[in-house]
Amino acid sequence: MNEARPIRTAEILCVGTELLLGDIVNTNAAYLSARLAELGIHVYRHTVVGDNPERLSRALKAAFEEADLVITSGGLGPTYDDLTKETVAAYFGLPLELHEASLDAIRSYFTRTGRVMTKNNEKQAMMPRGAHVFPNHYGTAPSLAIANEEGTKTAIMLPGPPGELCPIFEEEILPYLKSRRTSVLVSKNIHIFGMGESAVEERLKELMTKATNPTVAPYCKEGEVRLRVTAEGDSEAEASAMCDDMIAQICRTEVGQYVYGMDVGTLEQAVILFLRSRGLTLACAESCTGGLIAKRITDIAGCSDVFLGGCVTYANEAKIRLLGVREETLARHGAVSEQTAREMARGVRERLGADIGVSATGIAGPGGGSKEKPVGTVYVGISTKDGEQVRRLSLSSMRSRDYIRIVSAGNAYDMILHCDK
Amino acid sequence: MNEARPIRTAEILCVGTELLLGDIVNTNAAYLSARLAELGIHVYRHTVVGDNPERLSRALKAAFEEADLVITSGGLGPTYDDLTKETVAAYFGLPLELHEASLDAIRSYFTRTGRVMTKNNEKQAMMPRGAHVFPNHYGTAPSLAIANEEGTKTAIMLPGPPGELCPIFEEEILPYLKSRRTSVLVSKNIHIFGMGESAVEERLKELMTKATNPTVAPYCKEGEVRLRVTAEGDSEAEASAMCDDMIAQICRTEVGQYVYGMDVGTLEQAVILFLRSRGLTLACAESCTGGLIAKRITDIAGCSDVFLGGCVTYANEAKIRLLGVREETLARHGAVSEQTAREMARGVRERLGADIGVSATGIAGPGGGSKEKPVGTVYVGISTKDGEQVRRLSLSSMRSRDYIRIVSAGNAYDMILHCDK
Repeated sequence: MNEARPIRTAEILCVGTELLLGDIVNTNAAYLSARLAELGIHVYRHTVVGDNPERLSRALKAAFEEADLVITSGGLGPTYDDLTKETVAAYFGLPLELHEASLDAIRSYFTRTGRVMTKNNEKQAMMPRGAHVFPNHYGTAPSLAIANEEGTKTAIMLPGPPGELCPIFEEEILPYLKSRRTSVLVSKNIHIFGMGESAVEERLKELMTKATNPTVAPYCKEGEVRLRVTAEGDSEAEASAMCDDMIAQICRTEVGQYVYGMDVGTLEQAVILFLRSRGLTLACAESCTGGLIAKRITDIAGCSDVFLGGCVTYANEAKIRLLGVREETLARHGAVSEQTAREMARGVRERLGADIGVSATGIAGPGGGSKEKPVGTVYVGISTKDGEQVRRLSLSSMRSRDYIRIVSAGNAYDMILHCDK
Repeated sequence: MNEARPIRTAEILCVGTELLLGDIVNTNAAYLSARLAELGIHVYRHTVVGDNPERLSRALKAAFEEADLVITSGGLGPTYDDLTKETVAAYFGLPLELHEASLDAIRSYFTRTGRVMTKNNEKQAMMPRGAHVFPNHYGTAPSLAIANEEGTKTAIMLPGPPGELCPIFEEEILPYLKSRRTSVLVSKNIHIFGMGESAVEERLKELMTKATNPTVAPYCKEGEVRLRVTAEGDSEAEASAMCDDMIAQICRTEVGQYVYGMDVGTLEQAVILFLRSRGLTLACAESCTGGLIAKRITDIAGCSDVFLGGCVTYANEAKIRLLGVREETLARHGAVSEQTAREMARGVRERLGADIGVSATGIAGPGGGSKEKPVGTVYVGISTKDGEQVRRLSLSSMRSRDYIRIVSAGNAYDMILHCDK
């Protein structure tokens, strides 16, 4: 088969009755779309059908009317209703044959995980003649690609579970798709906190609209913006340099001062790297965030070298007992105040013997707001041996409790990253 | 129009280029599918197209070749590329007309949220002649339904943001769809913790396969199973009684002892109701869960009457300083041990003056495991004035860090619900 033809358009075709029943959310389609967009491949449709070969066959035909590439997920399992491979092979007019290497891999997967292989699993090693087979180190269903003689139609079949689909895509499919290009793509991420999505877009509108190579695509979640810069060049070095030029341009604008890192993953990962590189330890004192600041830090394995612990002091009594916040402070200024945030951050730092203490106290809503301190009022504090600093947030009271808590935690992390210890 | 025809089959048609770029995950399709399944409406396909009226028009035609009902999401906004309403109206051959009530509602929405209404927003009040218009209290785009003369084809159009789509579906669309039935549907949820999905299905297989009215559908997330029992009857009372009979049957099986509530929402909501009804207060001490136990409790607004606070004691030093865990205990038994879990639970209960203290200490991985204490070993403790109890979990080391932490928190909640104070 001729695999040299460039791939420009794609459709995502997900197979699984559990998707149509709403038992699971189709995260695969979003994941694959985002990755294809980065490769410059235009996805113009997602389709989900059940475990039904006739509907799958029709959907496949409809997809190839427009797309160079169809990526399927699901229907590669061992049972009788897993029929993706059979249906796609029939579309391409190819017979199925036993693929010895896949059978060996499936046998060894069962040995490794101490489970018993059934006769059914052998079906997973049957492959359309001439298929490009990719190994699966995360489950029993190998992935595969088939292309027609002319190389104008390619089908890639992936297993349904995201825990298998995503790593296989990264490790096998991405190199395969890149090998079918004559050019090289490089992507880099700029991570931004403290400037809203619309403000970032407004500021970079001209640059983003004009930019075709590199392209600049914004991704947003609560309070954070990630700009993905993707360049296409003749070599890795050339594409990388094109990205760097664009990044430098962006960083020279007002947006630059809100950049907290490049390709650092999440804000909490950036915090851990920051602390580790400086040999600093962290403790946190949380009221309205209720454990979220600590939870996100401890989501990351291996955080124990920089994170000592923290206190969730929801009740005033807990603030007094665990953190040594003074009763007078609470009586005079209230639990939601600059003074309380200050004493919480200092208290947790001193009591845990940490280099940095952070705190958050506020009104996450939907109840509990007042005229002076409406829902969305949060004080975020930081304490080091040099003293304390407190940021007052006035988030819109139309925002959800979740949003207010997430952005409060984000501000605590941001204050750590701006702490010049 | 004739709306008396029963609706048996549906397609979900989501409109939005941001879905095809992978910027957002299509949670609407899963949500709508699950709700339609409960109504006995069979969803046979999901399709996602961009903001492109031609593709939308083709997708709509294809959908109505099989479906009695097409539900669209997205494309009802005020901008020029929001064209769902226009495209669907054209399919039904209906002109658009100004809908005064909608215009008033949009005006009042802007006044209420203190924003400025632009000329564009008036477009959102244009409706196909004869459409059934549903108010939107959560945004500016009204929802609508159109049916053909014969009542054999119905289109329901909903706004894209899940924060608008979901409540509108619950408040407006569900009653509308129910009004188009001659029978009444009632659903009730059984919440289960501590018995895995496959064990529940294995135990109830016969019952679930045979059951056609009521139906029993399982929904699973980490360590939790929810069984949704749905009955169809001539009246609310009849359908409700049919559900109750099925629930009683299920509760008489082995599954019954793992049921923690009916229609209670989440495990943490059940905990709050449990504590509130008994006038008890809670504090938590967390090592491997790193704040997750507290975070999930404080996700729920108004938890402050029962939740006092907690400590995240990641470092040993923090366990000693904040909770009074003895150095000797840590040296002799290790941080991951029954004894440490016991002292953590007691320590936090006493220090915060709570009725109940819970704790979790374990190895969430992926690193840190040993032969005696592999990844997945977690001790979950509970302390009351009557003493302490500890549960040892041996979760598979193949499980993710997230899973191990979520199930550990789940066990802490479960121990609270089984505490006979």
